[in-house]
Amino acid sequence: MPDPRFYRREVPRTLADLAAMTGTRPAPGADAGLVISDIAQLDTAAGGDIVYVGDKKFISAWRASACSACITSEALAREAPATCSVLIADDPRAAFAAIASIFYPMSEALDGATPIAPDAVIGKEVRLASGVVIGARARIADHVTIGANAVIGPGVEIGAGSMIGANVSIYYALIGARVILHPGVRIGQDGFGFVPTSKGLIKVPQLGRVVIEDDVEIGANTTVDRGTASDTVIGAGTKIDNLVQIGHNVVIGRNCIIVAQVGISGSCKLGNGVVLGGQVGLADHLELADGAQVGAQSGLTRNVGAGEVVLGSPARPVRQFWREVAALSRLTKPKKGP
Amino acid sequence: MPDPRFYRREVPRTLADLAAMTGTRPAPGADAGLVISDIAQLDTAAGGDIVYVGDKKFISAWRASACSACITSEALAREAPATCSVLIADDPRAAFAAIASIFYPMSEALDGATPIAPDAVIGKEVRLASGVVIGARARIADHVTIGANAVIGPGVEIGAGSMIGANVSIYYALIGARVILHPGVRIGQDGFGFVPTSKGLIKVPQLGRVVIEDDVEIGANTTVDRGTASDTVIGAGTKIDNLVQIGHNVVIGRNCIIVAQVGISGSCKLGNGVVLGGQVGLADHLELADGAQVGAQSGLTRNVGAGEVVLGSPARPVRQFWREVAALSRLTKPKKGP
Amino acid sequence: MPDPRFYRREVPRTLADLAAMTGTRPAPGADAGLVISDIAQLDTAAGGDIVYVGDKKFISAWRASACSACITSEALAREAPATCSVLIADDPRAAFAAIASIFYPMSEALDGATPIAPDAVIGKEVRLASGVVIGARARIADHVTIGANAVIGPGVEIGAGSMIGANVSIYYALIGARVILHPGVRIGQDGFGFVPTSKGLIKVPQLGRVVIEDDVEIGANTTVDRGTASDTVIGAGTKIDNLVQIGHNVVIGRNCIIVAQVGISGSCKLGNGVVLGGQVGLADHLELADGAQVGAQSGLTRNVGAGEVVLGSPARPVRQFWREVAALSRLTKPKKGP
Repeated sequence: MPDPRFYRREVPRTLADLAAMTGTRPAPGADAGLVISDIAQLDTAAGGDIVYVGDKKFISAWRASACSACITSEALAREAPATCSVLIADDPRAAFAAIASIFYPMSEALDGATPIAPDAVIGKEVRLASGVVIGARARIADHVTIGANAVIGPGVEIGAGSMIGANVSIYYALIGARVILHPGVRIGQDGFGFVPTSKGLIKVPQLGRVVIEDDVEIGANTTVDRGTASDTVIGAGTKIDNLVQIGHNVVIGRNCIIVAQVGISGSCKLGNGVVLGGQVGLADHLELADGAQVGAQSGLTRNVGAGEVVLGSPARPVRQFWREVAALSRLTKPKKGP
Repeated sequence: MPDPRFYRREVPRTLADLAAMTGTRPAPGADAGLVISDIAQLDTAAGGDIVYVGDKKFISAWRASACSACITSEALAREAPATCSVLIADDPRAAFAAIASIFYPMSEALDGATPIAPDAVIGKEVRLASGVVIGARARIADHVTIGANAVIGPGVEIGAGSMIGANVSIYYALIGARVILHPGVRIGQDGFGFVPTSKGLIKVPQLGRVVIEDDVEIGANTTVDRGTASDTVIGAGTKIDNLVQIGHNVVIGRNCIIVAQVGISGSCKLGNGVVLGGQVGLADHLELADGAQVGAQSGLTRNVGAGEVVLGSPARPVRQFWREVAALSRLTKPKKGP
Repeated sequence: MPDPRFYRREVPRTLADLAAMTGTRPAPGADAGLVISDIAQLDTAAGGDIVYVGDKKFISAWRASACSACITSEALAREAPATCSVLIADDPRAAFAAIASIFYPMSEALDGATPIAPDAVIGKEVRLASGVVIGARARIADHVTIGANAVIGPGVEIGAGSMIGANVSIYYALIGARVILHPGVRIGQDGFGFVPTSKGLIKVPQLGRVVIEDDVEIGANTTVDRGTASDTVIGAGTKIDNLVQIGHNVVIGRNCIIVAQVGISGSCKLGNGVVLGGQVGLADHLELADGAQVGAQSGLTRNVGAGEVVLGSPARPVRQFWREVAALSRLTKPKKGP
């Protein structure tokens, strides 16, 4: 379930109510009076939770899940475990987004009209510059410095000795100790998640967090979106340059180096000590093992193994890239010869 | 003429005055005492307006235009319609920029020293966080939320239910209903327009607006420049990710998806339902028809037809791109022996 | 030595103290009681300064230097001039970073809790919008405009007639006259410099400045890092578009045009009139001579000569690029039969 420090859940609803509110229909045998109190993912669901199953590859996880209800397609409904009441939707993903919006109707943190919320907890020797805004229930540890006109959203936590630059904004995030965020960094806004429907693009509620571990440094105007259901994570000691984009649910290991203007699409996983050169782009859901190195401007469309060095768009082993550059150059040379 | 909500016009000038102020010369037959009151584009000019003609391809539009005067080159001057008084310039584009600066001398909106201008109109149930600045004559509709330290410039209008993130700045813009702008978005600053001259790069005044239609969402730290003479437009339902650059005069249709770090150069036109992958770049003045799809990191140098799918830098049909990748790879394989 | 307007130096230390504090060891013959008062670079060092020598190519500069002490490796220590006391480190670069941190322990400018520091010097007809923060000892010349919620750090100087946009932040910088910085620009934050060690990535103190000459214009959300030891410089009349990244120690000439989303790595040098198309990336330490032109999305890994036009990633002469594109396309055409 979403972190209650950041998300306030609305009242429980019966399955029949949810069906009526979302234009879906209970499958044969579904318990229309069942009370649903939260949304969840298959592996962490508990009794009273409703989940979403969008593909048959999740059927075994579904059968192992403790969820009480599920939203899915006509075709998958017959695979439901007996303990799970099913709602059938023509567009199950859009319907699940609608249910998430019923339980968590407003996913944007609201800033208060006072600069420092009275219930924010501020440690010792904290330096707050002019114009700093700190939201309700935020917790700022000792020796933190926050630059002018920075905005710390409700419930955010910042560890000891961290330095937050001017004009930074942080929402839905837990920040470690000795973290440096340079001016204009954006942490914790909505990820880019939409379901295409006949009525246009429906927004998928973003109900996760950003977790930034100790000793991370993030460059000016870099953006880190929060997770959809779980967390976007930046591992301890990792250094990120300016104008980098980090999508929702990305998990980055320890001591990585990410150079300026890199874009990491949603749900990528980077190991420890990974190096990404400037302007690299990663497609979504990729995995880069420990020590992987990606040359500047590369475009990744596949996983990268431990210590592997790749280059190019699409990325390939670095030696192969340079062989191809040389071969292409030779192709255009005038042929010698009699 | 520029929108008077955003631009204040200076007093009218005679043709002779404009010639003297810009170092240009009236063509034979020009009416030196003619009073010019505004700059305009050929197709929307009215009596009293001066226009710019920079290429012979505009001659027929010139002849159909209701403009009273024109600035052009020696070579094109003889093509002028009889109703149009001509100023001849060695560098007509630079001279027209100078005339624009005479009528609209300061193109930067000035923020006031008070947070909320007394003549701003604020609707019902509007939530303004700490540090919000709202300029003169701005109009904020009902149920709008504006995050901490955001800046709404003079004359800007924001439609009902929109959510403006922390540290956003908006100038020269009309924003629709239910629009979401994430933190750090920059709307309405000057486009990137300069005329190279022997004295360096002369700034072209940017006198248009940004129009953002209903249900648009724009990601953190994305920048949208205002139009030069007309508008930069983002169509209803379009979703734009983080760190995207949208140049002046770009017109984007409805329900497009534009992924992070895309750059769209000035005056491009996108139809409805266009999808641009991450880090795509578009050269200026391109047209992408409805449903065009451009793969990540592509570089577009030509138009894209309806439903066409392209990839690569320079972009080509997606199958062709992958055939070339395979062919290049084969080139470098060691030849098998006999 | 670092500019005392921006950096406050701690007390002098003996060579023996520095050795103890950094885990390094004096070379045979080093004067353990020698008093060191500052860090420096080889060419500008004076008596009392300690420098760093990381490669044998600097030996002649070392012998010509007026430095009193040096930190280097075991192998290079024997090359020291007789006038220079040497500290030997297993990781000399990390040790020099540690010494820099001893003399300049906090490299982040701290904003005050009052919006306008009492000792800031503000010229005539300066317009400061709501929420502007100006740090200690900053100097704002006549006719400057500063947009809402912008932050001007301690010691920063801004020349006459400049326009600073909303939500801009400026630190460690000297800004010329008639400069335009659009909203969200970030000037003067730390460059991206780290030494990999067995304990993770050690931060290299960034002790330089940003110098922006007259008539420069910089687009929204662009970032310009300050120099490590010397300055990051943007030459007079140069125009930079939105979302550009300019690394530490970059020196850009006059009247250059740098289109949106370009990334320039540390220590690059651009001549006058250089043009970089959108999304271009430059590797570090490159030199681009006067009038060099780089096509959009190119990736530079080598220097570019005066007036040379290059394109592609890796960049090559523009004609060669298009020949290769054509050759690759032909490769995939079905062969015509006999």
